[in-house]
Order: sequence, then C-alpha cells, then structure tokens
Amino acid sequence: MQINLNADLGESFGAWRMGDDAALLQVVNSANLACGFHAGDPLVMTQTVRAAVAARVEVGAHPALPDLQGFGRRVMHLAPAELRAAVLYQIGALAAIAASEGARVAHVKPHGALSHLSWRDAATARVIAEAVRDTGAGLILLAPARSALAEAGQAAGLPVALEAFADRAYAADGTLAPRDQPGAVLTDTAACIAQARAMLARGGLLTAQGECLPTPIHSLCVHGDTPHAAATARALREALVADGWRPAGLAAVLATG
Amino acid sequence: MQINLNADLGESFGAWRMGDDAALLQVVNSANLACGFHAGDPLVMTQTVRAAVAARVEVGAHPALPDLQGFGRRVMHLAPAELRAAVLYQIGALAAIAASEGARVAHVKPHGALSHLSWRDAATARVIAEAVRDTGAGLILLAPARSALAEAGQAAGLPVALEAFADRAYAADGTLAPRDQPGAVLTDTAACIAQARAMLARGGLLTAQGECLPTPIHSLCVHGDTPHAAATARALREALVADGWRPAGLAAVLATG
Amino acid sequence: MQINLNADLGESFGAWRMGDDAALLQVVNSANLACGFHAGDPLVMTQTVRAAVAARVEVGAHPALPDLQGFGRRVMHLAPAELRAAVLYQIGALAAIAASEGARVAHVKPHGALSHLSWRDAATARVIAEAVRDTGAGLILLAPARSALAEAGQAAGLPVALEAFADRAYAADGTLAPRDQPGAVLTDTAACIAQARAMLARGGLLTAQGECLPTPIHSLCVHGDTPHAAATARALREALVADGWRPAGLAAVLATG
Amino acid sequence: MQINLNADLGESFGAWRMGDDAALLQVVNSANLACGFHAGDPLVMTQTVRAAVAARVEVGAHPALPDLQGFGRRVMHLAPAELRAAVLYQIGALAAIAASEGARVAHVKPHGALSHLSWRDAATARVIAEAVRDTGAGLILLAPARSALAEAGQAAGLPVALEAFADRAYAADGTLAPRDQPGAVLTDTAACIAQARAMLARGGLLTAQGECLPTPIHSLCVHGDTPHAAATARALREALVADGWRPAGLAAVLATG
Repeated sequence: MQINLNADLGESFGAWRMGDDAALLQVVNSANLACGFHAGDPLVMTQTVRAAVAARVEVGAHPALPDLQGFGRRVMHLAPAELRAAVLYQIGALAAIAASEGARVAHVKPHGALSHLSWRDAATARVIAEAVRDTGAGLILLAPARSALAEAGQAAGLPVALEAFADRAYAADGTLAPRDQPGAVLTDTAACIAQARAMLARGGLLTAQGECLPTPIHSLCVHGDTPHAAATARALREALVADGWRPAGLAAVLATG
Repeated sequence: MQINLNADLGESFGAWRMGDDAALLQVVNSANLACGFHAGDPLVMTQTVRAAVAARVEVGAHPALPDLQGFGRRVMHLAPAELRAAVLYQIGALAAIAASEGARVAHVKPHGALSHLSWRDAATARVIAEAVRDTGAGLILLAPARSALAEAGQAAGLPVALEAFADRAYAADGTLAPRDQPGAVLTDTAACIAQARAMLARGGLLTAQGECLPTPIHSLCVHGDTPHAAATARALREALVADGWRPAGLAAVLATG
Repeated sequence: MQINLNADLGESFGAWRMGDDAALLQVVNSANLACGFHAGDPLVMTQTVRAAVAARVEVGAHPALPDLQGFGRRVMHLAPAELRAAVLYQIGALAAIAASEGARVAHVKPHGALSHLSWRDAATARVIAEAVRDTGAGLILLAPARSALAEAGQAAGLPVALEAFADRAYAADGTLAPRDQPGAVLTDTAACIAQARAMLARGGLLTAQGECLPTPIHSLCVHGDTPHAAATARALREALVADGWRPAGLAAVLATG
Repeated sequence: MQINLNADLGESFGAWRMGDDAALLQVVNSANLACGFHAGDPLVMTQTVRAAVAARVEVGAHPALPDLQGFGRRVMHLAPAELRAAVLYQIGALAAIAASEGARVAHVKPHGALSHLSWRDAATARVIAEAVRDTGAGLILLAPARSALAEAGQAAGLPVALEAFADRAYAADGTLAPRDQPGAVLTDTAACIAQARAMLARGGLLTAQGECLPTPIHSLCVHGDTPHAAATARALREALVADGWRPAGLAAVLATG
C-alpha cells in the first residue's frame, strides 16, 4: 500500500515570492517545478532543486505555456511543433539544473491551461506525451486519472502515474468542476481527507453526484498556496499514514501498483 | 592536420529571420546555437538542430545574458549564482531538444557580452566553466585562445577548444580590437584567408602590430550574417583544405591536437 | 473623392529587421505602428515615428496581444480588464514617443489575433473601443468594414474609419477568407487593383462569390512584407490617383465622407 | 511649511503580490508607479491608479531598465537613444492608463539601477531629464537632492522636486551608503523620524559623519515593503504633522518652496 503525494513548487519569480515550499517539502514525495515559462527562473529552479534534494523529495518538470504574466493560466493556441519544442525546452532546462545539483528529473506534469487542454484534447495530449518520450530520459508522465493525457502517455509507451485531487470536486465526466462553481474547491480539511480516503478505498474518482469512476490512483495532488492548504496537506499525509499507506516516490508506486 | 570551423546559428526568433544558416551548415563543423535568451526560441532551436543533423554538423550551446531586445550584447551584471543558473538552463534546454532529434550537445561557447566578460574577467569565466562542468555531460568548452575563459575551463578540468577569428583584428593583448576601430573587422576575403593561414602556420594570434602571441588553435570562428561573410567563410574553408587541413569536429581536433 | 491608404509599420524588434518601411512610407497616409507587444520596441517606435513624420505620414497605434514570439498572431484569452489595460498601455507608450517627436497618435487599429477576435466578437470589440475612447485623446478607430469592432466604435461614440483589403479575398459573411484557403491572398498586382477599384466603385466589400456587401470604405489596407507587396501597394496608389482619388489622412476622409 | 511624502507602489506583477499599497496610500502624497519594465503590468497599473485616485494620492511614473527578473536592480548598459525611448515608453503607458481613470501623471522618478546611475552619471541623468521634458506633459522630475539627475532636470528647464531618505544613511558625498554597509538602513522608527526632522530643520542631507550637506528638501521617500516599514512611514507622517508640517502634493510644495 504505497501512495505518492505531489505538489507544485518553485513558483517564485525574481523578486517575487509565492507558496510555502519549505512546508510542502515536508509533506510531498514529488515536487512539480516551474520551469520559467509561467513561474520560476533559473535561480529559483536551482534553489528549489537544492531544497528538494535536501528533503529527499523527487523533482519533476512542470512545463507551461509561455505566459509569465498570466501564470500559464490563460488559454493560448500554439501550433503542435511549437508546443512540442516548448515542452522539451522546459524539461531540458530543469534537467541540467538538476544534474548540477546531483539530482535528476523524475517526472513531467503539465501546468495550468496546458494541463486543462491536455486533459480533454487528444491532440495536445499526444504532443506532450511524445515530447516527454523523445527526451529519451526515462521520465514518468504524471497525468490526471481518466484524462486524454494519461491515454496519450500510455499510447506513447511512457510509464504513467495517475493522479487524483483531494481538494477539488469532480464533475460527472471525471474532469474538475470549474473553480467558480459552488463547492468546486474543498476548503475543509476533514472533507479533503474524507474524499482522498474514499477515492483510495473505492478505487476511483468520486464525482459531485456521488458516483465512483474507477481508476488506479498513484498520486494525490496537494496544494500549499495558502497556510490552510499546507496544513491540510500535512493532515492528509498523516491520515493516510495512519490508514497504513506508505508515501513513496512515483517509480516505487508504479512498480508495486 | 585537422582544424575546426565554427559559427553562430539559429539566431532567428519568432517571426524574425536572421543569418544564412543553410549556407553556413555547408561550411562549418560546429554550430553554436542560440538558446532563447538573446535569440532563438524552442521551435527555431528544434529546426536548427534538425538542419545541423542533416548536414552532419555538431551542435553546441551558445548561452547568453537574458536580453532578447539587446541580442545579448548589452553589458548586464548578474550575480554569480544567477549567471551559473542561466548558463545551465540554456545548455539543458538545448540538450533536450537535441536529444529529441537524435543528436547531442557537443560544446558550449558564450555569446556576446557574456563572451566579452568571460574573455577577461576570471570570476565570470570561472562561473561559466564550472556550470559547463557541472552539467556532467562531458561538454567541450569552446573558448577564445589566451582568454580567461580558456584558463578557467582548464582549471575546471574541461576539454577546452581554443578558437581564433579569421575576420577580426587582434589588439596587442590578444583581445579583439573594438568594432568601431578602423580595420577591426576584416571585410576582404583574401585578407581573412591570409590571417587564418598565418595564424595556423605561426601557431598563434597575430596582433594588429604584427606580433604573434603563441597558442594552439583548434577552431576558427566564421560568420554568416551577410552574404559576403558566408562567401568568405566558404572560401576560407576551401583555402584551408587546399593547404592540407582537414575540417573536423571539436573532439576529433582535440584528440589529435 | 478622398481615400486613405494604411499599412503596418515598425515591426522590427531589437536586432531583427522586418518589412520595407521606407518604401511604404512613400505610399500610405496612415501607418499602424507596433507598440512592443507583438513587435517593435521603444527605439524602433521612435525611429519609425521619426521616419513617418519626415514622410508626412500619420501614425496610429497597432496594439496586440502580449506575445512577441508569436507576433501577436496566436489566440490568447485575456480577461476584459486585462485586455483593456493592455490596449491603453500600448496606445500611451506610442503617444509619449510621438509627442517627443512633435507628432501625435491619430488612430488605433488592433493587430493580428486581437484584430480577428474583435472582428466578430462583440465583447472583445467593446473592450477595445472603450479603451480607445477612454484615453480621451480624440483617437480615430480604424476598423474592418462591417465588423463588430466598427459597430462597437460607433456605439462608443468614436470616429470610426472603415477599411477594406485590396489583396485579400472576402468570405460570404464579409470576413477575410482564411489564408490557407486557395485564392485567399491576391498575389497579382492587377487583381488587387481591380478588387480595390470595384469595391470603391460599387461601395462595398466584394465576396469571393461575387456579391457586394455595401459599406462605406474610408481606407484601404496595403502590405509591405515582401518586395512584391510593396510594389503592389505603390501601383495601387498610382491607379487610384489616376482614377481621380486623392490619398488623404483619416480625419480628412472622415470629414468629407 | 509643506512637505511631500513619496513611495514606490504598484510593484505586484501578474499572479505575484508585493508591498502594502493600501497602507502606504494612507501615508503618502505621491506614488511612484512601476510601469511594467521592472514590476507592474497594465492591469496592476490600472488598479493602482484607481486606488491612488480613491485615496487622493498623486501618481508618478517610476521608469526602470527592462529587467523584470532582476526587478530593475541589475546594472545594464543601454545606449542613450534606447534609454530615452524606454523612459518615454513607460511614462506614456502610465499616462494613458491614468487618463482612462480620470487622473494624470504628475511626476517621474527613476527606479533601481537606473536611479543609481542617474544619481552620479551626468550623461544618463541628461537622457532621462530630456525624455521627461520632451513628453511635453508638464511633468515634475522627482530627483535625489544633490544628484546629477537633479542638476540635469534643472538644466532641462523642468520643475525638479528634491527628495531625501528618512531611512537610509548618507555617505560623505551625499549618496546613499551601500545597503551591505552596517547602519546603511535605519530600521528603528525613532531613528528615521529623528533623521527626517534633523534634515528638515537643518536644511540639508545629514551624512553618517554628522555633516550637513545643504539642499532644499521637497519630498521624503518612505517604504512599505515590510510591515515595519509601513508602520514607520505612518509614524513619520504623524511626527511631521505634529511638528507643523503639512503633507502636500509635489506641485504645491514646489510652488511654496
């Protein structure tokens, strides 16, 4: 019974700070690092890799659309060749920085609008999955369970880790309920823990309608952008450990999954 | 008798074209590719790697200061940790793109103001050399002969290829004469060929004062930013071949040097 | 019988050149200047204003989405408040540069993907029109004839100059036929002149199906991105003058229209 | 007895927050707004102008070197024509946004490395002062007392408001003591108030050596980047008011100065 916990880190930029990386590094096994397109910069990436190494947390690349001002959350249409090149560029940039710190990139997870696009759009998903494959670096694709991206990763022959969200409500089709919808974001720690436990116990995503959409779950995504969120993440980890789950790296979870 | 020819390629950006890459790929053995900080973008980098692979030209990273508008030519003061991270980031970005095209980054050569800084400033040179070393990727440092960068590369244990310029006049101290000085840029093809031949024959840099500053020369830098420059580069190659030199990759030249 | 000719200018950026501004300044009455978001930079803007002033050509702002790499041609979703602020920012930046050269911004015309969006989307069109109005600078909105942008400009109480394209085919609904469709771009000088003459004579846009969609036409958009295009633009101007049309500034055309 | 208080505002960018603008708007008369080159973006600028208008605080432009990642604090060499254009661009961008909110730009104060450069370097100072003059917008130049910038502003015929720092130690030559020097930053509220009072009473800058370098002082610069700093700014204002000083806009202070 192993489970991975992942979170987005390294989202500071230049003189601006964001997120409580120090707190999250005590909670997660896998950190998705911004690679300079939506957040992060070479120095922030270096410092975050160093902190992750010290905390024995695996690092992954969190590639995004090229939109620093919009934090990679604005929809933007890139041609497939542009998107492929942008994903490769970001993964490689992090890989060299990781190597210089004695670490390596273990996985890739798309960020923001790119993640949303690749959740449903098979063409976008395929471009991303093939870019990850073509690095030749043996990377794991961390993809939402039941997403087009997960399918594309499998089709590309990648090891695919499937993630679920403890603190977000799922729509009937297994996508995330839009943030502006009431109840879309679970802000109550107990509710988050309950949802995570139920998903792991029942082996699927739980929709707002109460249905269970069956899927393996290798990783739970947690957040640290508010003090509350970081505390919830920590409480979730403790609850899972109390249930007998052992938090582990993605490769370890996939090996035994 | 082997000699390397290198040139800066992939300096287009987005909708803007620059340089005659196709012509230069018929001339050089090693291409220094812009990595997105002063020129180039992920798609241009991909296309340039692909063209280099097709032409059997080795690719290297041409990292620069983060100044697209200034083409990396404006002096800019980065802290050592910032500079180190920026160099790693650019090398890695190109490495992943190269890998996806079945190629690899063979060398690193700093661009523009960063090159000028590292020519004379030992601290900057050391930061760059150690970043190249710490990629752990077995990269060759392509550095101006008799520069601080060359020394820093040797001190860091890197393979260092020393380059000379066929089309630029050297000052008494072995640095390039400033462009705005009369005679600083050799625009006559015959003069470029004569200077290159003399340097290779005498084993050193030739200053404007007629002195020879002894140094091994592994590579000659050529340019393609004007039709004239590309034609000169081609004529230089032909002249050297006629002299019995065999144009070769950097590793091959170093192995026999 | 007055007609305005307009073209996009100042699309160089940093070390990269684009377009034949010198040739177009001999042809057009109104220049749409890139404002640094998709092309142009403060220095290019200054130089282009100076050249326009010397050629007695009026300058207008050509605001775009914030996407230098994509030349403002990639669709990107900005929130209305973001878009409004971006449009104001670009107009103001050009206005101060124009003032420093003894000129003023006369009009505003959206660029690229922003233009396409505002052609059909009333909400986008309204944001742009109200931003132009709220500069309080008495600016003319240069909008495609029969577009949502033209309507929004009129609703906002702006002077609206309506433009038609001599070198592009119109779809049945009065929008431009997509570039990748055969015949969408008229590359033959005679065909361009014939289309312009027919539109002015019949008082409307001519669709590929041969219909005339009635509309006033105050300005014809010409291009200079190829030597051919600049020559066509010049020939068009000469043909119109031969027909008795007098090329004039936008305010003059509107005053008599 | 009027005195102006000024502070840097609008330094957030995209998703990143910085500074306590709400607190400072209760303290200062003049806000120096980042214009997108080192901080700020069009939306942040709009929101900050709106808040300043609501608080009856005058807005000024805070132009900087084009270096978002370095927050405009890294030295960067721009050619005079580039710098002039960059300053004009930023002032104009803010001016259009201010106009759209029913406000106007009242003054200009350079930021970061550009400020340091213009403090001592007459050529840089002249470029900035002439750019401000050539907007033709009747702007006040807010310059450090006894700086090259202040002199250049007077030579350019601009109204020049002279500022002093309550919370920074002055070197013997009237420049700020470098931040890394012990005692360079006054962190004690009482010490800041004492320094401000002494400068106003004695009519000059007080050096760390205890000398008074005579100069008019029209404005005191305060900070809000820490909770402590904002509290100090408020306490300083209250102390000055208790002394009989009336906080006022720059034009009012200059009119009576």
